[in-house]
Amino acid sequence: MIGIKNVASFIPEYALDNLQRVEAFGESSEFITKKIGALKLPRKDDTEETSDLAVKAIERLIEASEGFEKSSVDALIIVTQNGDGEGLPHTSAIVQQKLGLPKSIAAFDVSLGCSGYVYGLHILKGFMESAGLKNGILVTADPYSKIIDPDDKNTALLFGDAATATWLGNSPAWNIGPALFGTDGEGEGALKTSGSCLTMNGRQVFDFAAKNVAPNIKALLEKAELEDSQVDAFCIHQGSYAIVDAISRRFKGSQQKFIRDIGSTGNTVSSSIPLLLEKHVLGSDCKKVIISGFGVGFSWGTALLTKNTN
Amino acid sequence: MIGIKNVASFIPEYALDNLQRVEAFGESSEFITKKIGALKLPRKDDTEETSDLAVKAIERLIEASEGFEKSSVDALIIVTQNGDGEGLPHTSAIVQQKLGLPKSIAAFDVSLGCSGYVYGLHILKGFMESAGLKNGILVTADPYSKIIDPDDKNTALLFGDAATATWLGNSPAWNIGPALFGTDGEGEGALKTSGSCLTMNGRQVFDFAAKNVAPNIKALLEKAELEDSQVDAFCIHQGSYAIVDAISRRFKGSQQKFIRDIGSTGNTVSSSIPLLLEKHVLGSDCKKVIISGFGVGFSWGTALLTKNTN
Repeated sequence: MIGIKNVASFIPEYALDNLQRVEAFGESSEFITKKIGALKLPRKDDTEETSDLAVKAIERLIEASEGFEKSSVDALIIVTQNGDGEGLPHTSAIVQQKLGLPKSIAAFDVSLGCSGYVYGLHILKGFMESAGLKNGILVTADPYSKIIDPDDKNTALLFGDAATATWLGNSPAWNIGPALFGTDGEGEGALKTSGSCLTMNGRQVFDFAAKNVAPNIKALLEKAELEDSQVDAFCIHQGSYAIVDAISRRFKGSQQKFIRDIGSTGNTVSSSIPLLLEKHVLGSDCKKVIISGFGVGFSWGTALLTKNTN
Repeated sequence: MIGIKNVASFIPEYALDNLQRVEAFGESSEFITKKIGALKLPRKDDTEETSDLAVKAIERLIEASEGFEKSSVDALIIVTQNGDGEGLPHTSAIVQQKLGLPKSIAAFDVSLGCSGYVYGLHILKGFMESAGLKNGILVTADPYSKIIDPDDKNTALLFGDAATATWLGNSPAWNIGPALFGTDGEGEGALKTSGSCLTMNGRQVFDFAAKNVAPNIKALLEKAELEDSQVDAFCIHQGSYAIVDAISRRFKGSQQKFIRDIGSTGNTVSSSIPLLLEKHVLGSDCKKVIISGFGVGFSWGTALLTKNTN
């Protein structure tokens, strides 16, 4: 059974300081600390492409994973909506070449936003099992700095750049599933690129997440025949401090198990959940973890991860 | 086991007439009949978005498939590198809304070109099996007319618009697999979008396909423990008349089993293989069919389809 073997990440060193910037947007520091939650927003270098962030995350993954060699990689997915160039060819092909991965790899990009990691785990796991592959890498790399209008406070103070890489294979540390997904294209206009710029109706996105995510998590718990008290950690997409807080309040008694870690990265789109896993889950005593991603589309997905005790 | 239940398509009625156009490009009619092979190139209306082509193909699929209702769809993949708008949100979310599909569906886009259908079958099959889903739709919709420079004879005489929809579910008509995939990002520049326009190095693309596709098919036959004489039909991507001909010549004795049908559609990118399946395979006596897609990336994939005789 294919599952998660390891997670690594690349976060650009350079970061914007939101507390220094907030006044220019006509907002108080409380807007940063209580609503958005992001003190720093990492920013890739202008010369770095999406594929470069992916390459750095994969290099760290391989370095951190004993027995994992480039030559053994046979599948690569990149979750992004801001890949290299103009969409053709796919960024995963460019990464194959930059890293010198075997030409026998299956590689494709998945277009999803903040729900992308939860989907991506099941896409890669299922694809590998269906095609008989052994060592896959799931990359998240969606640098919104490429499309952010620096004068738009809805987005310019919120999104940070990051990339992650997750190794999937047999004898995993964590088993994946079950999962529940959803899609509501009525949210199409709430978060979209237009004229090469991201536009966001923050209120509409918040209301969608506040309304749909907790019921989706509860439905998944029911499907997995679990109470929230049996879950060790909830790693939900760090959309903003306020949305994580609002969703956690729907789980009385488990509220403190919702991990909050947006301060030094901001909303990193599909990278936020694997960043939480890398930092707070992999080396921990957790045995059952809920992951839940939600955003652009609208699109959402929730899954259970269970530590492999074999 | 998830497999193919049905295939349907939408081809725009309006089409360019290549024989009428070829002189203006300084080429003879033989360039059309012997090299490209496409007499007509269907063109979507300027007001139609990629999602509209997808919607029409899905509507035809549902109409043609007894017992298949919109309300039973729980997964949707759109294979495209020219989706609606500017890449965010994903086109499959827009299709969910336009068709009124259930909000409980899992939906995402896959970014691949001419290899996309072969990949897509395994991606959707694997995802459905991994996530426990029952009725999925794999759409191909990549209207290159959006990005073609009308003065570039390399591309303007070659690519046609089309969309297809394939129903995947249990008790299928056709079983999927095994498959073999490959990726070579050295081909990044051979077929790419630049300044909103497609550029193609036709010679480089032809040489890549002529060199790699036949060995990939032969490796797949070996993996499946089959001789080419045991295969009833080879449905390979209709890149051009010349490339299908060149690849087929590597299979002496089976050459006539390579289906050639590019005349009325041109190269429809990821739609070419499902168009062949719909027209030449589904209602036929074929029992074993090889499908093989290759192109942008470079990327390639070959799979065996076996008629389900249960």
